[in-house]
Amino acid sequence: MGKKDKDKSSSKVSRCILLIAVVGYYLMGAKIFQVLETDKQEELRNSFLEAKAALMKNYACITSDELEIFLQTLTFSVKNGIIPLKNGTLYLSWNFKNSISFVAYTLTTIGYGTIAPRTPMGQLFCVFYALLGIPLTIIFLELVSKAISQPLSGLGKYLQNMGIKEGQVKICMLVFFLVTGLLIFILLPPLIFTHTEGWTYEEGLYFAFISLSTIGFGDYVIVKQKKRRLRKLHFSGL
Amino acid sequence: MGKKDKDKSSSKVSRCILLIAVVGYYLMGAKIFQVLETDKQEELRNSFLEAKAALMKNYACITSDELEIFLQTLTFSVKNGIIPLKNGTLYLSWNFKNSISFVAYTLTTIGYGTIAPRTPMGQLFCVFYALLGIPLTIIFLELVSKAISQPLSGLGKYLQNMGIKEGQVKICMLVFFLVTGLLIFILLPPLIFTHTEGWTYEEGLYFAFISLSTIGFGDYVIVKQKKRRLRKLHFSGL
Repeated sequence: MGKKDKDKSSSKVSRCILLIAVVGYYLMGAKIFQVLETDKQEELRNSFLEAKAALMKNYACITSDELEIFLQTLTFSVKNGIIPLKNGTLYLSWNFKNSISFVAYTLTTIGYGTIAPRTPMGQLFCVFYALLGIPLTIIFLELVSKAISQPLSGLGKYLQNMGIKEGQVKICMLVFFLVTGLLIFILLPPLIFTHTEGWTYEEGLYFAFISLSTIGFGDYVIVKQKKRRLRKLHFSGL
Repeated sequence: MGKKDKDKSSSKVSRCILLIAVVGYYLMGAKIFQVLETDKQEELRNSFLEAKAALMKNYACITSDELEIFLQTLTFSVKNGIIPLKNGTLYLSWNFKNSISFVAYTLTTIGYGTIAPRTPMGQLFCVFYALLGIPLTIIFLELVSKAISQPLSGLGKYLQNMGIKEGQVKICMLVFFLVTGLLIFILLPPLIFTHTEGWTYEEGLYFAFISLSTIGFGDYVIVKQKKRRLRKLHFSGL
């Protein structure tokens, strides 16, 4: 085995280790958040349901003070991702799927904030988890982008061999990158969102940009709810 | 005037231009957001106040359907930064101060999302505004960090002149940077927040990290409200 082959295989191994480390780190983090946060979120949900039930029972003789207290409870609930609906309550629980989403949004620094740790332990863990996880994510994404761009550098060499000047090839490649990047990450996704999320094209464009730039307001978030009504009420333009 | 002096003064001029460009860009953006968003936010606030007034008037004979509709209105309101309080309504209006905060949080990609554009025009502008503003902010922050670290490189040279080895000096400087950075940006601010925001030290630490890492969930946000009650209700742990 030559030196080149050795280097190649060792770099493959290290990439594989990195991939496993990233996946492992994501899964582990998601699990820890789930364990730390489930009770608190359940508690918040129950206190909202209790307040609602109490109001329902007493609404014929409710006083203004009672109503104010209820309103403040409701406000607190909504800020914690608990959304009252006609047929039950939608709430962003710390199930595994949501927890994975949370981890991904945190380590890419998007941070929508639709779901976030509320317990002191969860918050403290979040700090140390992200401290290591963010650089890890960056290294990982750099590797991914290198992997994607490698076949394209082959295209550049092919163009050069065809007798096109180096400067022109570089410009060609840059334009190609910009156009395909813009199409794949910014211009095409909104077309999908109009169907899946019930957003306008402009709303989808806004969401795509806010996410890619890692701003992540959390005013628009992708949900794969089956009921369109839920989706519209909970996320469209809220 | 020598070449060095010329370079120095021209670099000073270009820095000055950059500073003005950044400040101008921030002010202009804040103004445009204010113009685009004020009406919509006012409208949202009014529809919440109307719904609340209607409930107050009718609560003795309210039906379940009526209540559900009210709850959904309230949810929508809270998600838009309109917080019902005992003595009136707190709402994050697009006044100039809030608009400046929004711009700063957007262009640093923190994106708390406590206030965000709701009109199609505001959202579209936000995309193009940030497209130019984020790189500008990065260049600006790099210059600032260079300016801060320049006097410290003088300290490094001084240590070297005192006969300390280059390697040791580098380690010293790194430790010095880490310790001071950690103190100034992560460990000391929470002490201030415990007084100004009514948070625990851990909550302050969490907020400092979530902000500096540009994650920006928006679950904790600094407010300079005079009433402690407001602060506690609206932002502490919500």
